[in-house]
Amino acid sequence: MRVLGIDPGLTRCGMGVVEGTVGRPLTLVDVNVLRTSAQVPVAQRLVTIEKGVEAWIEEHAPDAVAVERVFARSDSSTIMGTAQASGIALVVAARRGLPVALHTPSEVKAAVSGNGRADKAQVGAMITRILRLDAPPKPADAADALALAITHIWRGGAQARIDAALAAAGTGANRTPTRSPR
Amino acid sequence: MRVLGIDPGLTRCGMGVVEGTVGRPLTLVDVNVLRTSAQVPVAQRLVTIEKGVEAWIEEHAPDAVAVERVFARSDSSTIMGTAQASGIALVVAARRGLPVALHTPSEVKAAVSGNGRADKAQVGAMITRILRLDAPPKPADAADALALAITHIWRGGAQARIDAALAAAGTGANRTPTRSPR
Repeated sequence: MRVLGIDPGLTRCGMGVVEGTVGRPLTLVDVNVLRTSAQVPVAQRLVTIEKGVEAWIEEHAPDAVAVERVFARSDSSTIMGTAQASGIALVVAARRGLPVALHTPSEVKAAVSGNGRADKAQVGAMITRILRLDAPPKPADAADALALAITHIWRGGAQARIDAALAAAGTGANRTPTRSPR
Repeated sequence: MRVLGIDPGLTRCGMGVVEGTVGRPLTLVDVNVLRTSAQVPVAQRLVTIEKGVEAWIEEHAPDAVAVERVFARSDSSTIMGTAQASGIALVVAARRGLPVALHTPSEVKAAVSGNGRADKAQVGAMITRILRLDAPPKPADAADALALAITHIWRGGAQARIDAALAAAGTGANRTPTRSPR
């Protein structure tokens, strides 16, 4: 199974591709941080992120995409941009029919280090060991993206399969716009 | 000038198209509320919103798109979905090369009613008058989308032109992903 992990962000968007299955050693396929400048209008920055994520999905053909779940209680100065970037990542994956899963930072930390409150250094060290790298991936967004992909593989992609089944069944979705009364 | 106003939201996304110029009576072209069900995975809901906004741009061919600027301090239970939906609206417009502007709720209220703290009823009443409608557009998301479009026309689209110029100049954008060191 090949998973693309995405740590969404407007300034830095981490993307990491990991291959493997539960119980076998995992392999790093590629890791990247997509950057956009704060001097560019947000709409253009989001288009750059959309193109970057699309290009990576095209290049690496992942079986699933794992995106960090963003919470309102996070750092409020950048949280809107992070949420917008996560929306773009979700749409790019979903419109290609790829299973998409959201994992919280605590779930990711717990999965890779056994501790839901692990710090960046601990997560980096575990990623290095799990993927048998020479040094921790940098910057932190790159390590976080790889941690998301690892978490997704280790959790067996169960949630993604449930979501995909629900999406295929089209449960409750209003797929066509409904006109409001004038 | 024909402007598409978008009041972003995951559950209800208001879209209103208004035509006219500063100093002349404005005309309602169309108004719609795009709905998605909370029972569907977020990624699928965002794809539905993407398709809905695209279909509307296709149908109404606006000259510009005005999206409500979302703040972290807003209602926190739905703010993440709102931010994600706004990101989708921005991307759909920007990748077609349409000028995109963001207006805050206060700017919109001030523009249509002269009072930055106007309530929903006051905004609805002003929209009814400005567009010479028989009754206020419902739900509130529809009225808010029309108010955004009106605000954009009345503000002369100045910000959109600045943004478009900056985007065309590509100021500071890193358009290609940069690989992080392994």
